[in-house]
Amino acid sequence: MTGNHRQAMQDAPPLRVGVVGLGMAGSLMVSVIAQHPCCTLAAVAEPYARLRERFVRDHAVPASADIVGVLERDDVDAVYIATPHQFHREHTELAARHGKHVVVEKPMALSLDDCDAMIDAAARHRVTMIVGHTHSFDPAVRAMRGAIESGEYGAFMMAASWNYTDFLYRPRRPEELDTSKGGGILFNQIPHQIDTVRYLNRARLRSVRAATGRFDPARPTEGACAVFLDFADGSCATLNYSGYDRFDSDELHGWVSEGGYPKRAAHGSTRRAWEGFASATAEAAARSERYGYGGPAALSAQTPPHQPHFGVMVVSCEHADLRQSVDGVSVYTRDGVREIALPKLGGRPGRSDVLDELWLAVRGGVAPVHDGQFARGTVEASLAILRSARERREVML
Amino acid sequence: MTGNHRQAMQDAPPLRVGVVGLGMAGSLMVSVIAQHPCCTLAAVAEPYARLRERFVRDHAVPASADIVGVLERDDVDAVYIATPHQFHREHTELAARHGKHVVVEKPMALSLDDCDAMIDAAARHRVTMIVGHTHSFDPAVRAMRGAIESGEYGAFMMAASWNYTDFLYRPRRPEELDTSKGGGILFNQIPHQIDTVRYLNRARLRSVRAATGRFDPARPTEGACAVFLDFADGSCATLNYSGYDRFDSDELHGWVSEGGYPKRAAHGSTRRAWEGFASATAEAAARSERYGYGGPAALSAQTPPHQPHFGVMVVSCEHADLRQSVDGVSVYTRDGVREIALPKLGGRPGRSDVLDELWLAVRGGVAPVHDGQFARGTVEASLAILRSARERREVML
Repeated sequence: MTGNHRQAMQDAPPLRVGVVGLGMAGSLMVSVIAQHPCCTLAAVAEPYARLRERFVRDHAVPASADIVGVLERDDVDAVYIATPHQFHREHTELAARHGKHVVVEKPMALSLDDCDAMIDAAARHRVTMIVGHTHSFDPAVRAMRGAIESGEYGAFMMAASWNYTDFLYRPRRPEELDTSKGGGILFNQIPHQIDTVRYLNRARLRSVRAATGRFDPARPTEGACAVFLDFADGSCATLNYSGYDRFDSDELHGWVSEGGYPKRAAHGSTRRAWEGFASATAEAAARSERYGYGGPAALSAQTPPHQPHFGVMVVSCEHADLRQSVDGVSVYTRDGVREIALPKLGGRPGRSDVLDELWLAVRGGVAPVHDGQFARGTVEASLAILRSARERREVML
Repeated sequence: MTGNHRQAMQDAPPLRVGVVGLGMAGSLMVSVIAQHPCCTLAAVAEPYARLRERFVRDHAVPASADIVGVLERDDVDAVYIATPHQFHREHTELAARHGKHVVVEKPMALSLDDCDAMIDAAARHRVTMIVGHTHSFDPAVRAMRGAIESGEYGAFMMAASWNYTDFLYRPRRPEELDTSKGGGILFNQIPHQIDTVRYLNRARLRSVRAATGRFDPARPTEGACAVFLDFADGSCATLNYSGYDRFDSDELHGWVSEGGYPKRAAHGSTRRAWEGFASATAEAAARSERYGYGGPAALSAQTPPHQPHFGVMVVSCEHADLRQSVDGVSVYTRDGVREIALPKLGGRPGRSDVLDELWLAVRGGVAPVHDGQFARGTVEASLAILRSARERREVML
């Protein structure tokens, strides 16, 4: 964003944003919207009464049980759709029909047909649709993209991305463990990596070769994968992910968490806590309590001291390697290493950049990067990874 | 190796080993052989008079200009062939005809025909042939293999290996920059990574999908690559390498060098030193001086304080992740992280394990892992990486 954009954002009337779903993503966004200089929180919808009541105690903002309660309000310009994946298409179409701009959480949808329907709906009703948040919005990724666009380092040639987390043993709803319903890492974690390399290199993805792993029959969905991506321009990327709560790649990133907070080694502890749940019902309830509005995980909406990131990633250009560091981007060249320091995120938690992109599109007429076509490409790649692993062959896109 | 093996090694007559070629690999092996408890240095051959003279000043060991001077000696049981790649076949066949056991440096050869001829020669003359050294011989890799073989952690599922080095700008002979003559990373660096994952998972390689990079026209050979390996048992590995002296992955390994020595960040310095050479001839001479017998790089034959390693690697099994650490192997499981500490390498520099495998094969009748068939598989994979990159498709093996 340029300085002119920032000034324009402060002068124009704020965007009034509704949040649909007060689970993890939605409740994080509540505070991000509240702190954003040119958005206001206009309304929320959440079917689970306990979360809605917690919200109403904190905010003088209308709360309804149903999305329609938000969409029918004249004082809502845009909605942030953070409902379970299977509702993304229906809720996006509904929002578009009501003339509301849409930010829909990743994954955009679980099939390309659904993606196409959402793209059509937004176009037909002339609303902006952005898909996010993913870590491709992170300031460090944007800085890397800026470095690449500057031309100083030559073309993007190869990216390598690792993330090893406790993802699979975090408390889940049963559908989150069913790939056909959008469960597992392919729809929930790998999109961060795919979006990021596609954000950095705008060439079309040409093919995918991948293997996936299900290492624990008690969590019957993909929890690990290894991916080779071939871009049409001849560059490539490899992605590795494992969510089995063993090695934690933040060990290689100064023990700073995905959100940018200091963390401590806790190998296996998420899994051991999960083993303590008496039933899937107890687990799902714990999930809602912990990650839903007002739960302890909502603390992480506070401003992080370091940059958000997603594992470790090295991007090799013709003349430089770029790597996300704890507070910025390290640039390694013939002349040594230098640091692109990024501004501290004071008052701008990690996900503010999604709102910037929305504001610039709606008020500034700047075409968003993370639009429906971009996000469709990431869904296509996720589906191709599953297919490549199943058929044990390269899949052309 | 078991305690019984170690005892037997001390009781049996030593293996008398000749070294052919006093370049970097050969001169390293001179001191490794001299320090090995059950090998003796019996003879050397080196055509370059200056290196031979330096050697003769240090050792009361016969030195000839030609390999035949070593092979015709009755007091030589085995030879370590560290000649340029293009001579590996001829020299191995010659050694076998003279009834000498052979350790031949990687790459075994540059074509599968040559590999087959070498395997045939060894079989026909009933000599042992081992290909090495690669980092698959490292104590940490052997410890990882032991952990996998124990069955405690379930099957090997996925390996991810990164190495970012200054390889391409180290002083070179012209042929080392010509892929058709065995130059570049595919024949000289990636075999470490391929050997290592194949050593850890003994399943057959089923297919390869890869991209290679030539980022600098002044070094016209492959200097970077990204590889997806599919094993017949459904497991997989990804390998990333870049040798352009920018990011150095030892930054993620406590700044311990490949050989196990403390090192400091020196991004770009190898390249800047290379830019100072007046000509390719000056560069080749510097190479010989620096890395040949008695040069400053020979210092690294001293016992390293830490374990040798090759970049960073995470191996995911069904129930654990294994990672080479500075002094051993970190094992990450449901129960946390524990360290397999390895004995210090006192008196046993990194490459002693090649001689152990040779000794066990010749004196102990233990079939070597790194035999001709194993090494042929790695050459096949290197060639398939080049082909996959050229044809932009998956290559079946």
